[in-house]
Amino acid sequence: MQLYPLKLVTVVGESVIMEDIAEEGIKLGATGYSMSEVIGHGSRSARNVGEAGGAKTLKIEFVVPSDVAVEILTHVSHEYFEHYAIIAWLSDVSVMRGEQYTRKSGG
Amino acid sequence: MQLYPLKLVTVVGESVIMEDIAEEGIKLGATGYSMSEVIGHGSRSARNVGEAGGAKTLKIEFVVPSDVAVEILTHVSHEYFEHYAIIAWLSDVSVMRGEQYTRKSGG
Amino acid sequence: MQLYPLKLVTVVGESVIMEDIAEEGIKLGATGYSMSEVIGHGSRSARNVGEAGGAKTLKIEFVVPSDVAVEILTHVSHEYFEHYAIIAWLSDVSVMRGEQYTRKSGG
Repeated sequence: MQLYPLKLVTVVGESVIMEDIAEEGIKLGATGYSMSEVIGHGSRSARNVGEAGGAKTLKIEFVVPSDVAVEILTHVSHEYFEHYAIIAWLSDVSVMRGEQYTRKSGG
Repeated sequence: MQLYPLKLVTVVGESVIMEDIAEEGIKLGATGYSMSEVIGHGSRSARNVGEAGGAKTLKIEFVVPSDVAVEILTHVSHEYFEHYAIIAWLSDVSVMRGEQYTRKSGG
Repeated sequence: MQLYPLKLVTVVGESVIMEDIAEEGIKLGATGYSMSEVIGHGSRSARNVGEAGGAKTLKIEFVVPSDVAVEILTHVSHEYFEHYAIIAWLSDVSVMRGEQYTRKSGG
């Protein structure tokens, strides 16, 4: 079985910004994402993720090529880390039919 | 602490096929799974995952030995990739008490 | 882009113990966690995770330094593996601004 190395980018943060991040991920080259509701608790600078009575917290996952992963992580870091309770991480994954995770140019 | 290397297989797709995939994963050697509801968005060939007003999307995770992971991924790919909006990926994980993830023969 | 290697600890188990595990993870050094509801099915010794009509199953994720990951996994294993339906695994992740995942002494 042929497996293709890709990256899984996971972003957890306040729901108010997560729809934007999902769309921005697509603009940066992701071909899709999955999003789910979580209860978050954190000690991030700005405020707690999902602190008592707080806003809904969402988790987004993108499976993308390495360069797109870095672009998404850099974008999220620059745009949101300072003012929002958000965390993001990257991990290695393998998929079958890897070409489906790369957007065709002109597509 | 002794850690055992295993594989995490994640499958995200339309709920109509996910119960079957869960059962098929068990038949192929997984000793368990966890399933959760997600909002999916993708550009897969057949149709979008969870497209506007579309069906519920589910995510299933199996923690399994490497050979079982390959069997599940191959099965999912062969049976579902062509006709359903589904993505699947593999990643490396470590567990304690790894023997509990391997089915005993005759069990 | 500077990325820092950390560990993702994932624990899936009966909701009755998951709030405790979340708090214990924080005491052991995690700076946060995210928690979500899943449907679990397993063949663990004690009982099935989320077996028919059974209790709610929760999944907790901690992103932590390696030593904290080992402490959480060891704690969960020692305290809960014998009597509860619970599984836990570890994987490698990378984050930006890794210092935010390490608790300051005296904090």
